[in-house]
Order: sequence, then C-alpha cells, then structure tokens
Amino acid sequence: MNTKKILVAYKRQGARIETSARTKLGAKRDFSLWYTPGVGAAASHLAKHPVDARTMSVKKNSVAVVSDGSSVLGLGNIGPYGALPVMEGKALIFKERAGIDAWPLVLATQDTEEIIRIVKAIAPAFGGINIEDIAAPRCFEIERRLIEELDIPVMHDDQHGTAIVVLAGLMNAAKAMKKDFKNLRVVICGAGAAGTAVAKLLRAAGITDIVLLDRTGAIYKSRPGLNAHKAELAALTNPRKVKGGLAEAMVGADAFIGVSGKGLLKAAQVASMAPRSIVFALANPDPEIAPEAAKKAGAAVIATGRSDFPNQINNALVFPGLFRGALDKNVKKITEQTKLRAARALSSLVSRPSSLNIIPDLLDPRVVKAVAKAVR
Amino acid sequence: MNTKKILVAYKRQGARIETSARTKLGAKRDFSLWYTPGVGAAASHLAKHPVDARTMSVKKNSVAVVSDGSSVLGLGNIGPYGALPVMEGKALIFKERAGIDAWPLVLATQDTEEIIRIVKAIAPAFGGINIEDIAAPRCFEIERRLIEELDIPVMHDDQHGTAIVVLAGLMNAAKAMKKDFKNLRVVICGAGAAGTAVAKLLRAAGITDIVLLDRTGAIYKSRPGLNAHKAELAALTNPRKVKGGLAEAMVGADAFIGVSGKGLLKAAQVASMAPRSIVFALANPDPEIAPEAAKKAGAAVIATGRSDFPNQINNALVFPGLFRGALDKNVKKITEQTKLRAARALSSLVSRPSSLNIIPDLLDPRVVKAVAKAVR
Repeated sequence: MNTKKILVAYKRQGARIETSARTKLGAKRDFSLWYTPGVGAAASHLAKHPVDARTMSVKKNSVAVVSDGSSVLGLGNIGPYGALPVMEGKALIFKERAGIDAWPLVLATQDTEEIIRIVKAIAPAFGGINIEDIAAPRCFEIERRLIEELDIPVMHDDQHGTAIVVLAGLMNAAKAMKKDFKNLRVVICGAGAAGTAVAKLLRAAGITDIVLLDRTGAIYKSRPGLNAHKAELAALTNPRKVKGGLAEAMVGADAFIGVSGKGLLKAAQVASMAPRSIVFALANPDPEIAPEAAKKAGAAVIATGRSDFPNQINNALVFPGLFRGALDKNVKKITEQTKLRAARALSSLVSRPSSLNIIPDLLDPRVVKAVAKAVR
Repeated sequence: MNTKKILVAYKRQGARIETSARTKLGAKRDFSLWYTPGVGAAASHLAKHPVDARTMSVKKNSVAVVSDGSSVLGLGNIGPYGALPVMEGKALIFKERAGIDAWPLVLATQDTEEIIRIVKAIAPAFGGINIEDIAAPRCFEIERRLIEELDIPVMHDDQHGTAIVVLAGLMNAAKAMKKDFKNLRVVICGAGAAGTAVAKLLRAAGITDIVLLDRTGAIYKSRPGLNAHKAELAALTNPRKVKGGLAEAMVGADAFIGVSGKGLLKAAQVASMAPRSIVFALANPDPEIAPEAAKKAGAAVIATGRSDFPNQINNALVFPGLFRGALDKNVKKITEQTKLRAARALSSLVSRPSSLNIIPDLLDPRVVKAVAKAVR
C-alpha cells in the first residue's frame, strides 16, 4: 500500500481504539450503584485501601503506553503527534492479542525528570507502564527510576521486547543454520535502546562474540570519548577488539542484527559474512537492507520487523504476553530470568526452524499464553 | 444498598470500562496497515500535520477525566485512589450517554503547577479535558491556565457542570412554585468550586439577591480577611449585606443551594424560609439535609444529587452533552453563553415543571442532544 492509500485508510478509520462500558447504565439503580451515591462507598474504601484498586477498578487490567516521540520507529525525533498513531497501534495490539486495556499517552515534553514525574503521577489508574520510543540514553534513566519508584510493572519495550524477540529468532536461526548458538559471531548495528538491550540479553544467553556499533563505529574499550553507558557496553562486548565501521565488523560475522536505520547495511558487507549468514534488518518501517538485496548478497536467513515479509521479528510477539503475565500474577518486575524464559518459550513454538520460519507468526494463538507463562 | 453490598458489587465487577478495538487484527495485512510498516506513514504525516490527529487518531473522540483527589464528592481530600472510582464512573457515563471515549487519570500530586504541566503534557492524545474534584481555589487557576494554554476544550465539571444543571433546575423550580426567577432570594452554602460557579452563572442569568456562605459564614464586602477569590464573590453577591451563618441567611430565602457537606442544613433553617421554598441539597453522597427532613420542615421543592431520590440535580445531565458538542463542532472554549444556552435547553425538556419534576431524568434520551446543541 502506498502512503496516500494508507493515509486515506487512517482518515476513514478515525480512532482505532475506543472505550466500552463493562456494565450498563440502563436504569436509575445502575446510576445509584455505579455513580452517586454508590461510588462514594468505593471511593472511601479505595482511599483507605489503595491496593484494592487492583481488583475494584480499571487498574486491574490497564496499561499506559507512554512515549515522548523522541525516537519513533526508525523515524527519529518526530514528537508526540508523530508518536500517537504508533502508541495507538500498540494499544490496539494489547487489546486484540492479550485483552489488555491500554491507552496511548504521548507527552509534549522530552525532559527526563519531567517524564519521570508525569509517569509517576498518572500511575494510580494503571496496572502497568509500557514506555515506548523514547531516545537513548534518556530512556535508560527513565526506565530505571520508574522501576525503582513505582509498584507496578514498567517496561521499555524498545529495549526488552526487542531483545526477547531477537533472542528467540536468533536461537532458531542458529538451529536452522546448524550453527552453535553460543559461538555465534554477532554484529549489532545501533547502540540505542534496542541495541543495548539486545547486546545485554544475548550476553546473558551465553553469546560472547558481539560487536556493537554506534554512529561512530565499533564500540571497544579504549575508544576515545565513550560515555558511561557506552563504556559499560564496551566492557560487555567486543572481545576481539574490532575497530572501524560496519565494513570491518561484518567480515566473517554469523549474524547481523540491525536496530538502526534505513539502508545502513550494504550488499558487499552481507557478502563478507560467514557462510549460512543470518541478517535481521529490523529498522522500522524501512529495514537496514531490503530483503531481496540481502538474499542476492548471500544471506541465508533474513528477518525484518515488518508484517509484509517472512520472519517478522516484532515486539508485538512479546509485549502483550509479558504484560498479560505481569497483570495476572501481580508481578512488579520483569527480570532478566523472565526475559530469557520468554525468549525460549517463543522460540520453542517453532518446532522445526528453517530459513523462512524462525519465529512464530503474529497471529499464532499460542504466543501470548507462552510468553505470559514465562512471567513469574 | 449498604456499603458492604456496594463493595462486593465493585469487587465482582472489577473495571467498569475497558478499551475495544475499532478495527480487527485478524490477518497479516491488518498488521501491515495498522501497525508496521503502515503506521510509519501515519506517524510521519501527523508529525508534520498535528491538526490531523483530530481526524486520524483516538484524539477524535477522547476526553481525559483528570483529578488529583483533593475534593472528591463531599468526601474531601482522599487522594488519587479515592478519586479513581469516581473518575472511572464518569468515564462510564461519558461512553454510555454520549459515546465519548474517556479515560480516568488520577494524579499522585496536588501541586498546582505540576498538575498544569502534566495535563498540558498528556493533552496530545485527547480531544478534551474534564477536570474533576480538584479543590478550590487551586482549581480556578488550573482551569484558567489550561483553557488559556491548550487548544482543546477544558472544563472543570464541579464548577460548570454543576452550575448549568443547578440553573436549569432552579428555573423550573421557580416556574413550578410560581415565583419570579430573577427576584429569587438564593442562599448558596459552599463557596468552593461549585458554589463559586453556581453564584456566577445565576448572576449571569439575572438573579441578584444571592448570599454565598463559606465555612466562616456569609460572604460580604467588608468581611475581614477575604482573599482575592472571595473578594470577587463578595463584589458579585449579597446586595443586602447579610452577615452571620446559615441561620441568619436562610430567613425569608426562596431557594437554598447546598454544595457543601453532609447534614449542614438544619430543619429549623428550612422552616424559616419564604413560602413555597426550594431546597437543593446537593452534597454527594450525603446531602446537606435528608429529603424527608426537608419536607417535614416545609420545603416545597426538594432536589439532591443522588439517583435514588426525585429531582436529581446531577452533572451527569451536562458533561456528556457539553463534550459531545465540543468534540463534534471542534469548539475550543465553553463560554458563558454556551452555559446559559445549555441550562435553558435542559430546563425546556421538562414541559410542565412540578415540585417532583423540575429536571429531566438521567435516562432521558433527549438530554445529551439538547445540551450538545447548545455548544457553538
């Protein structure tokens, strides 16, 4: 579909989510119970027992999808209105996939402290917080502080949703290519929110040879001018001390994971990879390399984040189930162990991985339940 | 229903509103259009043309119901969790009565500037802001600033919703009692958000003999220690310079309007009113005087805010229609003229006012349309 047709569809559609009444107001007694005077009893009770909001109010099943629009898809800093259709789309997926009542909150501020204050302030009406499309490194501080200071689950989906689904896909891609998972040489292009979380989770899953690249090139310990966040990544990755750009890093690599921008990966770089190479070009909406071009250059497994190509490595496989599990089990933190379990659960849904089938389909009805089960 | 039964009903019910998908995600192509890659086109477009969020997103039909829990019903400062069931109840009414997608946002802060910043920050995803149950005088500053600084309709319902429905009810009560509306002697008990707005709107509707009482007693020009807000009210009201408490103010009054607290009006004070007296005991959930007691003391017209008595003077008659009209006509300010028109429209739905029938029923299907029509 071209841009014009898409915009016509969105205009015709208007909102993609709405609210619905879960109880009727058909008679006077309904108003007496669900509004005044009845609501006074519920108000007095919840003022004294806030914890009961988890069973007696919308907080039971609600998630706020919060973005400041500073890093929307691969489109960059396009502000709250640019973020709105994406967050609304996530709210739609939350409902359709996991029955969760999510509401998009796009913020007209990009100040770290202000975002933290706002999310903390609006938290009482929500059972969970999905942070989304907030630029690095601000997103790390925001997530860390909110996890620390709130008593409901908080997850920055660009980080952990991406990391989980990438790990799941990579496990199956390695299996399909008969490569030893822990010995994979992995290149991650993009050291923002997603790249950082992917590197950390792959590391936690046992892969050691990871080269992470930012705009400057490969990140290594002695690289001049590393900030604290990049220095932490340098300590975790790049044991062979690879320097230079993608051209240098890609030579002999088993897997490329792009969480960066449109067209950053060149055909010649794909051609320089090890045999049976794996290319995850996940930039949205436009991948680092077109799937056809990657195939022509010799990639054996190709994945994107898009719904219109095979092997869709998309967070939508993860976030509905993770929050479903957290809400149902009243779990307040999504731990590293939960992420590893969720990735394994996802990958195990593909019984015989092959180059065109490394990850379950978004429509696979088993996905949400399997991921939710990983939350403990 | 007693408190225990009400709480059991709320626990059994859980959430009273939920989200629903307005479009299905049944096939891959649905994800391609409504999520990635399609949503990228909508995101880019709205980043450049934010005004189109009004037609292409949830902003088209959404209202945030915002409270800090500082003045919930007649229950006082019971905080965000106390406020939650009330705001959720309003969201339910918004949907059931006017088809509006409202979401409760209860804030864990009571700082004026912070509330203003938060509401401004979350505004992009909403088509309107309903402020609710925020204490006076903070609520005046918050509403004034938000109306000034936002480009969507903002209304503090405790003020204007109450004022409109009181005016509508009082017009019909005067008609039923064959009293001349503009010459009514009116006593308003409570000079907070609601009392202030009621006084101003009755004044705008032509009533001059209004005595407004706060905790100290009747407000008059030379009363020591009046703050700016009370001084403004003193200038607008009390032409006979009544001093003292309710006992003094009620002697010879035609109408009592209570927007204060439980049990503040005594039977003897009702007995001291003019013949064919009108008593609006609107404190929620517990009125200023029990209807039976008011009747016994001689009141001819009795109204409360509750659904379980006749003559329910309740904001729920106003806010759904006002926002329906504002959203449909893309109106950014609810003006004084709109409020007067809305009150007249509401009152005119009662063709033959009588002591037990001064205001349309909450379930009257004509109400929302009539009020919405008043918005221009």
